[in-house]
Amino acid sequence: MEAASTKRSQQAESDDLTIAYVGGGSREWFPKLAQDLALSDVDGTMRLYDHYPESAERNAKFGNWVQNRDEVTADWTYEAIEDEDEALDGADVVILSTQFDPLETFVPDLDITKDHGIYHAVGATIGPGGIFRAMRTIPDYRRIAARVRENCPDAWVFNFTNPVHFVTRALYDEYPDINAVGLCHEVIHAREHLAELAREEFGMPDAEMSDISVNVKGINHFTWVDEAYCDGTDLWPDLEEFAQNEQANRTFTSEDLEDVSPFNDEWQVSWELFRRFGVLPFAGDRHIVEYATSFLQNGKEGLNRWGVKRTGSDFRAKHWDPSESEQTTDVTAWMDGEEEFELEASNEAFLNILEGLNGGERFVTNVNMPNRGQMEGVEHGTVVETNAVVSAGEIKPLSAGGFPRPVRSLVQRHVDTIETVVEASRDGDVDEAFEGFLIDPQVQTLQTEEAEELFTDLVNAERDYLADWDLEGARVLDYS
Amino acid sequence: MEAASTKRSQQAESDDLTIAYVGGGSREWFPKLAQDLALSDVDGTMRLYDHYPESAERNAKFGNWVQNRDEVTADWTYEAIEDEDEALDGADVVILSTQFDPLETFVPDLDITKDHGIYHAVGATIGPGGIFRAMRTIPDYRRIAARVRENCPDAWVFNFTNPVHFVTRALYDEYPDINAVGLCHEVIHAREHLAELAREEFGMPDAEMSDISVNVKGINHFTWVDEAYCDGTDLWPDLEEFAQNEQANRTFTSEDLEDVSPFNDEWQVSWELFRRFGVLPFAGDRHIVEYATSFLQNGKEGLNRWGVKRTGSDFRAKHWDPSESEQTTDVTAWMDGEEEFELEASNEAFLNILEGLNGGERFVTNVNMPNRGQMEGVEHGTVVETNAVVSAGEIKPLSAGGFPRPVRSLVQRHVDTIETVVEASRDGDVDEAFEGFLIDPQVQTLQTEEAEELFTDLVNAERDYLADWDLEGARVLDYS
Amino acid sequence: MEAASTKRSQQAESDDLTIAYVGGGSREWFPKLAQDLALSDVDGTMRLYDHYPESAERNAKFGNWVQNRDEVTADWTYEAIEDEDEALDGADVVILSTQFDPLETFVPDLDITKDHGIYHAVGATIGPGGIFRAMRTIPDYRRIAARVRENCPDAWVFNFTNPVHFVTRALYDEYPDINAVGLCHEVIHAREHLAELAREEFGMPDAEMSDISVNVKGINHFTWVDEAYCDGTDLWPDLEEFAQNEQANRTFTSEDLEDVSPFNDEWQVSWELFRRFGVLPFAGDRHIVEYATSFLQNGKEGLNRWGVKRTGSDFRAKHWDPSESEQTTDVTAWMDGEEEFELEASNEAFLNILEGLNGGERFVTNVNMPNRGQMEGVEHGTVVETNAVVSAGEIKPLSAGGFPRPVRSLVQRHVDTIETVVEASRDGDVDEAFEGFLIDPQVQTLQTEEAEELFTDLVNAERDYLADWDLEGARVLDYS
Amino acid sequence: MEAASTKRSQQAESDDLTIAYVGGGSREWFPKLAQDLALSDVDGTMRLYDHYPESAERNAKFGNWVQNRDEVTADWTYEAIEDEDEALDGADVVILSTQFDPLETFVPDLDITKDHGIYHAVGATIGPGGIFRAMRTIPDYRRIAARVRENCPDAWVFNFTNPVHFVTRALYDEYPDINAVGLCHEVIHAREHLAELAREEFGMPDAEMSDISVNVKGINHFTWVDEAYCDGTDLWPDLEEFAQNEQANRTFTSEDLEDVSPFNDEWQVSWELFRRFGVLPFAGDRHIVEYATSFLQNGKEGLNRWGVKRTGSDFRAKHWDPSESEQTTDVTAWMDGEEEFELEASNEAFLNILEGLNGGERFVTNVNMPNRGQMEGVEHGTVVETNAVVSAGEIKPLSAGGFPRPVRSLVQRHVDTIETVVEASRDGDVDEAFEGFLIDPQVQTLQTEEAEELFTDLVNAERDYLADWDLEGARVLDYS
Repeated sequence: MEAASTKRSQQAESDDLTIAYVGGGSREWFPKLAQDLALSDVDGTMRLYDHYPESAERNAKFGNWVQNRDEVTADWTYEAIEDEDEALDGADVVILSTQFDPLETFVPDLDITKDHGIYHAVGATIGPGGIFRAMRTIPDYRRIAARVRENCPDAWVFNFTNPVHFVTRALYDEYPDINAVGLCHEVIHAREHLAELAREEFGMPDAEMSDISVNVKGINHFTWVDEAYCDGTDLWPDLEEFAQNEQANRTFTSEDLEDVSPFNDEWQVSWELFRRFGVLPFAGDRHIVEYATSFLQNGKEGLNRWGVKRTGSDFRAKHWDPSESEQTTDVTAWMDGEEEFELEASNEAFLNILEGLNGGERFVTNVNMPNRGQMEGVEHGTVVETNAVVSAGEIKPLSAGGFPRPVRSLVQRHVDTIETVVEASRDGDVDEAFEGFLIDPQVQTLQTEEAEELFTDLVNAERDYLADWDLEGARVLDYS
Repeated sequence: MEAASTKRSQQAESDDLTIAYVGGGSREWFPKLAQDLALSDVDGTMRLYDHYPESAERNAKFGNWVQNRDEVTADWTYEAIEDEDEALDGADVVILSTQFDPLETFVPDLDITKDHGIYHAVGATIGPGGIFRAMRTIPDYRRIAARVRENCPDAWVFNFTNPVHFVTRALYDEYPDINAVGLCHEVIHAREHLAELAREEFGMPDAEMSDISVNVKGINHFTWVDEAYCDGTDLWPDLEEFAQNEQANRTFTSEDLEDVSPFNDEWQVSWELFRRFGVLPFAGDRHIVEYATSFLQNGKEGLNRWGVKRTGSDFRAKHWDPSESEQTTDVTAWMDGEEEFELEASNEAFLNILEGLNGGERFVTNVNMPNRGQMEGVEHGTVVETNAVVSAGEIKPLSAGGFPRPVRSLVQRHVDTIETVVEASRDGDVDEAFEGFLIDPQVQTLQTEEAEELFTDLVNAERDYLADWDLEGARVLDYS
Repeated sequence: MEAASTKRSQQAESDDLTIAYVGGGSREWFPKLAQDLALSDVDGTMRLYDHYPESAERNAKFGNWVQNRDEVTADWTYEAIEDEDEALDGADVVILSTQFDPLETFVPDLDITKDHGIYHAVGATIGPGGIFRAMRTIPDYRRIAARVRENCPDAWVFNFTNPVHFVTRALYDEYPDINAVGLCHEVIHAREHLAELAREEFGMPDAEMSDISVNVKGINHFTWVDEAYCDGTDLWPDLEEFAQNEQANRTFTSEDLEDVSPFNDEWQVSWELFRRFGVLPFAGDRHIVEYATSFLQNGKEGLNRWGVKRTGSDFRAKHWDPSESEQTTDVTAWMDGEEEFELEASNEAFLNILEGLNGGERFVTNVNMPNRGQMEGVEHGTVVETNAVVSAGEIKPLSAGGFPRPVRSLVQRHVDTIETVVEASRDGDVDEAFEGFLIDPQVQTLQTEEAEELFTDLVNAERDYLADWDLEGARVLDYS
Repeated sequence: MEAASTKRSQQAESDDLTIAYVGGGSREWFPKLAQDLALSDVDGTMRLYDHYPESAERNAKFGNWVQNRDEVTADWTYEAIEDEDEALDGADVVILSTQFDPLETFVPDLDITKDHGIYHAVGATIGPGGIFRAMRTIPDYRRIAARVRENCPDAWVFNFTNPVHFVTRALYDEYPDINAVGLCHEVIHAREHLAELAREEFGMPDAEMSDISVNVKGINHFTWVDEAYCDGTDLWPDLEEFAQNEQANRTFTSEDLEDVSPFNDEWQVSWELFRRFGVLPFAGDRHIVEYATSFLQNGKEGLNRWGVKRTGSDFRAKHWDPSESEQTTDVTAWMDGEEEFELEASNEAFLNILEGLNGGERFVTNVNMPNRGQMEGVEHGTVVETNAVVSAGEIKPLSAGGFPRPVRSLVQRHVDTIETVVEASRDGDVDEAFEGFLIDPQVQTLQTEEAEELFTDLVNAERDYLADWDLEGARVLDYS
């Protein structure tokens, strides 16, 4: 029977919001968030918890340092807290954003998978690498869900950790009444791209991202839209025309991509799928190809032809090293005055959500939440991505309708893997997790015995991160 | 298979909106609407069509007269149009609000039903009277839907005609791609009542209707909420406490109600159902009792005990006569200077919807639309009432979740009647309509033969309004 | 997710079947069963367990006495066993057939309900009396299900105890992998009646019950058929014609029924519903009227008009007293030679089922099992009655299709009560059980406060039998 | 709303059954059928219709010739009829079994697909070849369904034409009330294999096919069982043990298979899937691999490793030539006395079905019928294969339950293709058919542009057989 109530009783409006940040040592997102909060109209306290306490300390110091700037409009205090329960105790809002050492996890995900003949584009959210990331991460997030139930059962919990669908689903599987929402930037980037198209191609010179309204649906990183407006003007006819243009029908060689970043996005996969199925993918092409897996065929050349470049393990390793990475921010350099600091707001939807929940302006954005009907034709309960309206104390998904059957089919295949692995994680059943692995369309390009070898090799390489799984009892790991 | 797209492609933002008003001779609502539009920030033209052309003429004259007032902020032109197709041709927005002569319809609905022992409280939307109103009205609205498809297929169509669920459902049954929305004031009145409670009982002295946010769901006139906030503050604990108070446990005698209006609402039925089922009804008690029919037991006394007074046929007859009614407005007196006119805006949600669709502020309100998942556990496709977010060119229902099973059961019983009668109307199948009538919980208090007699008597009394039904071929009317 | 397997792994074929009979002191059915087994081609042992050990002893003695008759074809041994676990240990087949002292249960069910204005026809399976019987019985059957899981997890469990739908559902709710089947004679009686009609009215002089094949569906005591064949000949045209005949349109007065048994069945309700809805009810009219409750309107006269006579509490009391009852059999008189005994087989489907399971001829009969798709449009998991095919070790329901919507609506209302009460029984939640009670269509003819009074009075009268319910914590029982 | 009735009103029992055989010139099956009928206890007339009238004439002659044999027990007359409507007029039973010239259809299916890199094992029911066979065949079967509606609306229609799922689904799509059943031998062959295992490995020396009872479910050629009994004995423990044995873990080289027939079946794929997913595939491995497509990876070697040999186009071509084929029977040689003829019954389930429908013994066998609940978790309405019970005038599917999620996922992918192509065939929409083609897991191993090339090449090669499709209007065929 459906739950009697969708009650989300957290009273969000507050003059002194308490945010617990699990993974608060983040070098990438925290520095932006601290600035956004400083320039917001919400006051509060943020507790930073991290496996690496010194990172949390550094961020707390930076957060408080920012508060001393003149331009600050809100009052925030930051503390690093070493005990997770203490960090969560009575929190109004919980942020989840963690990752393991990529050298021991992400790098083998990519390298071993490639050695077995699967040309992963990203490997972070689906396919062999994504499934192993899920297997490593889910047990931790089950524990977090249980702690939220104990310490702050009504808190709004925002999960940024990948794979967002697996992980957010696991939070609900462990604590069905949790108020959890998975968040991701891909849809927002796609809206930015649509605004750019509107400005440059569709004769709407003033179009901005915030003018773009789309009916988004699917699962995280495999989202689609079937309606798009720019400030009330229907973009569909323009999109259909554009899809036939030369710009939407370009091909690339491996050479063309030699010097571009793996984040490069030419939208060629998106236009191709739009032409094929009549609905428009709405996430980066590098992610889409791991779900619509025919684009991964024919190895490097096959993938590059679409302007998509594989994110290799060397990139991941480098990114982890703060001295090398371009994605992370050196807050110490700012605090020490080595680099000039300028307080500025980012474009993050999270702050709009926080203000909306706190009684500010009503806000519509994409969220990942369990399907209670907002996404037609895809399994009930699985975590889907659709729009939601955020208002004081509430986040409510919008009814997004369904898919053309062929697209639904492509989406449901991954839902089946996600649900199988989350079910398997209840008892640490490795054999059941392997069943979810086997039906993944990337894995389906291997013979079953090759798939088993790949699975076993990944387990062996990442054994330290899989301690919650019953590796001893697994039939599938008998392979030799 | 679910429809591929929920596309609502009407481009609403416009400097010159065209509204077609079917039933535009309205004496009650049009005078308010003309003033609201005059004080809005939307410009346009309104075409008034009515079976009684002189009423449309009078309203057009009044609309244009209003435009001459100094305070006017928007530019509107009104025309009475005698041809319905012409009125609809290319319209951006269509308003539907019609009724038949109550002396020939509503009065027999009430009187004959009462004669057969059913003590109808209102008789307008469900039960024998409501079902006959549906049977009279649906064929007309099938015709209107077909004309919308011809003349303005993408228009937003707002239906105010009762029974809102039957009628809106019939519009979609005839033209599945119609952009129709049923609108009704009951939920808004209930929000006003909640604001009053918040001010007077829950210690929130500044609470206003617009601060009240509820998770509304159900079918029109049988809506419930399972979450209620006032500006982000959860009202549930206050409501639960209040439901135990003396004020929520009052009883009434027939004498108590002698001089009150039938619109009197004491909320005693609502509190009783809240105590029983844990979710709060959210429409006037006089309507709720016709769906939760145990409150109709024991005749007048049984009903009055809850502070609910039957709306008798005399009231209906009087209301129809403009010289008697207090609900209608004498625009001629204003134009002739017999009565002083003061231009003022009403509190109507419709204007907010219009402005939202036209690119104004995003607006959340309750709407009646086909269930595509927004209402869990109730039949797909049936017209349900939930919140929706209105933005430029779009109206999207919010995912409202489900009911506790016993409440779902009470709601689904009426959905079954509604769906059966709408299906029957495709071929004018009177016997099938009678099956929908028979399973109505009010009718279930009669023996089958009594029910047949009642049905036959109503058909005979209203035969002129049932010309689209195959009365000749009906087995059930053989009764003698 | 649906269960992976419908495995029913009990190996039924055996030369030495072990049957555990819970409620084995039965005076009515056991004497027939012992004779049927004696004349069957299955051998085995039956263990008789009863709350009243002396009754079990008496039956064991009789069973063994029967085995000494010359005509016996099978080898059976009977033992009375005082420990329930011991009786169940390793059983191949379990029979459940128990009841409480009707003077303390059935009699107040009927009398108190009548005092509150509900004219129960039988009161044994639905409506106030049926719901209270369920509330008394379910906790016991949860315990039995748990013992089956411990002692004979793969046994086939046949439940004859009323209310069959509630009780069988509770067995599955407690132990989802149980191989339980609810059995009832109503459908078989209706097939006998159809055979009689075929012989006497439809020109098929040799028609027998076993020639009648129907597509039965619904819930126990509210079953319907939409196909009927006699040895391959479609009876539908005959049935449609007959329903218009005088014989199918008779009326009765209370005087007409003065001397008839409450088991009297004139089929007038069945024909009336067939005329109204196009599908034919297929259980005794006395049961049907408690589900299609419009036939209970207008008290005694209203009910008697259909040839249905109320089963009063005096009848129940008398029936319990073996010296008075005509339904029970005095096996002692046989064994003592006071009455002449003639060994003869009954017409019981149970023996065919047993032989079919044991590898004998494949057999199709009606069973009550959880809905896994065999009954379209009615809630998944609820216990429905459809045909099933019995073969060696297996019982598989046949896909029965759906209902016309109005009939589905009438059925689903009761499913909602059943599911609500079974859910409530998990924690002994009396308030939730009361919600299921409140939505019952018979109870819906009372005001909510009258319903509460009735409920409270029944609880007070039967408190000793409701010890597993949390009566202390119940809000609803605060009534005074 | 579900249909009100599952009525199958054909009165099958008859002393003079009329069978219309569309495709009655069959060289393979008709000679067996004529003998089976001659030795049956059903009398009647068979009308043979074929695109090749001379083949129908030959078979009619043979059928009548058989009737002159002494051993004959039933009275049958055969006529070749040149007009399809005349052949169908008033028929009780219709047999559908047709095929196009394989040189122009099957051969290009196989060769072109292989040229594009897909190593089809059979290519007859799914994957590129199967989808094209469906596209060629469906329009014809729509026409047949329309003729059945006209000429014999209540007839039982047995479809033997591949792809059985697509084709049977199309019959229902065109004429929803048709009494059509798809039949196929694969499940029966698998039961024979199980009987052999029972005899040789599981210690049941007398086991025969008819003793094997399985709970079969899935779609044709991708059926699975989750229960298996031999005369009531559960085989599951034996099967689980056997799956670990050497015999169930054999590997093959291409050389091993050089001289074996393509019909060779080692069951190695079945055992592998059983070990992976816990349920047992139940059709020939050569078919299973086209649905569980990981077994097709790595080309010839990959497939042969499982003991499966590709059915090449040369085999198909040879088979078509009666002078070469070993599958067809030379009835002329018999009639001319060139070969000795011995009248003998085959093992065909069809005759048992015919006798069961005609009032003979109740019979349980596997059938392909639209899913009305018999197969849980797979789309409603799609044609699924489960057991059914055949009795006088009726065929009722048995409720088969669901799948473990991963298996359901593999099955549903093909259902999505089947449903998409059947929908596309309503308007001959080639682009929509291509969408169904694109999501096929075999096609998913190609880049979208390669898939388009393959599709276009197949259309061009078989254009004469695709006249009912709108090739002119197809976007997808613009490829150059």
